[in-house]
Amino acid sequence: MSESRTVIALDAMGGDHGLSVVLPAAESVLGSRDDVALILVGDEAQIEARIGGPLAEARESGRLRIEHAPEVVTMDETPSHALRFKKKSSMRRAIELVKSGEADACVSAGNTGALMATARYVLKTLPGIDRPAIATTIPTMQGHTLMLDLGANIDCTAEHLFQFAVMGSVLVQAVDGNASPRVGLLNIGEEEIKGNDQIKEAARLVAATSLNYIGFVEGDDIYKGTADVVVCDGFVGNVALKTSEGVARMIAHFLGEEFRRNLLTRLAGMVALPVIRGLRRRMDPRRYNGASLLGLRGIVVKSHGSADRLAFAHAIEEAAREGAMNVPGLIDHRLETLLTERQAV
Amino acid sequence: MSESRTVIALDAMGGDHGLSVVLPAAESVLGSRDDVALILVGDEAQIEARIGGPLAEARESGRLRIEHAPEVVTMDETPSHALRFKKKSSMRRAIELVKSGEADACVSAGNTGALMATARYVLKTLPGIDRPAIATTIPTMQGHTLMLDLGANIDCTAEHLFQFAVMGSVLVQAVDGNASPRVGLLNIGEEEIKGNDQIKEAARLVAATSLNYIGFVEGDDIYKGTADVVVCDGFVGNVALKTSEGVARMIAHFLGEEFRRNLLTRLAGMVALPVIRGLRRRMDPRRYNGASLLGLRGIVVKSHGSADRLAFAHAIEEAAREGAMNVPGLIDHRLETLLTERQAV
Repeated sequence: MSESRTVIALDAMGGDHGLSVVLPAAESVLGSRDDVALILVGDEAQIEARIGGPLAEARESGRLRIEHAPEVVTMDETPSHALRFKKKSSMRRAIELVKSGEADACVSAGNTGALMATARYVLKTLPGIDRPAIATTIPTMQGHTLMLDLGANIDCTAEHLFQFAVMGSVLVQAVDGNASPRVGLLNIGEEEIKGNDQIKEAARLVAATSLNYIGFVEGDDIYKGTADVVVCDGFVGNVALKTSEGVARMIAHFLGEEFRRNLLTRLAGMVALPVIRGLRRRMDPRRYNGASLLGLRGIVVKSHGSADRLAFAHAIEEAAREGAMNVPGLIDHRLETLLTERQAV
Repeated sequence: MSESRTVIALDAMGGDHGLSVVLPAAESVLGSRDDVALILVGDEAQIEARIGGPLAEARESGRLRIEHAPEVVTMDETPSHALRFKKKSSMRRAIELVKSGEADACVSAGNTGALMATARYVLKTLPGIDRPAIATTIPTMQGHTLMLDLGANIDCTAEHLFQFAVMGSVLVQAVDGNASPRVGLLNIGEEEIKGNDQIKEAARLVAATSLNYIGFVEGDDIYKGTADVVVCDGFVGNVALKTSEGVARMIAHFLGEEFRRNLLTRLAGMVALPVIRGLRRRMDPRRYNGASLLGLRGIVVKSHGSADRLAFAHAIEEAAREGAMNVPGLIDHRLETLLTERQAV
């Protein structure tokens, strides 16, 4: 494969839809970006049987190849089971291609727990990083923001939160071209009981470095776009993200009900359809698909399990951006610099 | 005042707007409900000067009286400062009227920290309750749900979460007439790392009683209406609630922008206006104003600081419902029964 292309290994069998989503997504990314090459990791016979047209051409031109992996990690498999008994899974093989340097990054729509455990086992964490975190981009009134951790780490020390702040800041810098991402620590606004000890100490740690720390942010600040990076522990992040999805779904549900109320509102609904579509487009979760497993010695991007072609293509593009910038190398370098700064204070 | 009426003491000076919201709200509640009597607690001269019309009539008929309190707790005052230096505040006096039995409940739009600290100091917690919690009702696709804690307690043990479950269940039972409220513990859905130790232990404690425990719920379940009571620690609850407000505000913002995009969408906006109004009405936060400070030996309802007449009236009605049912007595009784059940297991 060409040296100048970013090579992405795709777990072709993972997620709810496996090949029927991964192949069309691969085709769409290869069609729109010339700087990406792909490795389809999975059952060779099944993949061979379904490759044709542009994918076959890409294969001939060397922009696509198949890597055989006979096993599949299922969506409800425990991380420990996957680690022990699925050593030849498409998920693990994709990660191993990153480890060996054959791929610059990998993408999987497989189950999060197994992916994190396998990635951690195969790739290991970067020096100075205690725990990898899961980060994702979400829309805000101003544009978008990166939030982490989203569920990999339930109980976090101040040092963990500090590491998340560094990793998030580096990712936004690299991928968004934002020279100095504003970093906020997610906290609550009750008077005199501003957060727990970990958060207060994390604030001290982050503030003592050259990170662009803007202080505590509250739940409603996330969507105001006050910060470019919102740092929290995985329990809080997971609840905040899922709660957000729940609210958005409820509003869509109510809006639908209101438009179906009577003949007049149905007519109004038809008139307003382009507007509602515009709103849906702006908040389309598929555009934000692709969560980054940060803190590893390699790039692993997690696609939503139920992702469709468009969503999975977005996850591949996220992996391509991170791969092109070598995000793990940047995190490693930045963390070292910041820890030196902290010691100097 | 009549024995059969529920007497509510109102901190007439609290909140962002003080008397200019409390007086009209009092008038509206007295006008719509015959079973409520009110005590306006605050600066007597100021209140006297602004009472007229229906309020003056209510005063003559014995459904309204004024209780003088010369001091006011400000919105940015620390709880400890309020406790030490504002012993004659309208907030404290309103709570004292509950303590003395002159009022069945009180309502304040003053600052949450000071209100909780003062209520706890004056009223004390119920036997068996370690910490009071803040609970509020939020809309769901099915109707509404009660969520607690929302910020009073950051680090919670399993026992605290158990107590929140009991208090929430009793409140929903008393106020909604729901014979067996479904209680859910807010958790995250990551595979094999289902929650922290406190939550797992809390699940065991709640499941060992006759509470209608439905298991763990996730962030997106809150708005599906899966549970009638959602229990979590105050940090998570506060973040979830504020994040929800943030998402709703962002969607409203985007919807407004989409409708203002061009002449055609502006026209669509005019046609869709009744529908948008219908949506706003359904999610109107004023209808859900009035958070309950649960676990105290008396009823204290916290109104949002920026509440308007309609919102503050809703908070008064919440206090009236709780007062009529004697919620603290019910919690006390239920907790005793459930603890006996637990011991028997």
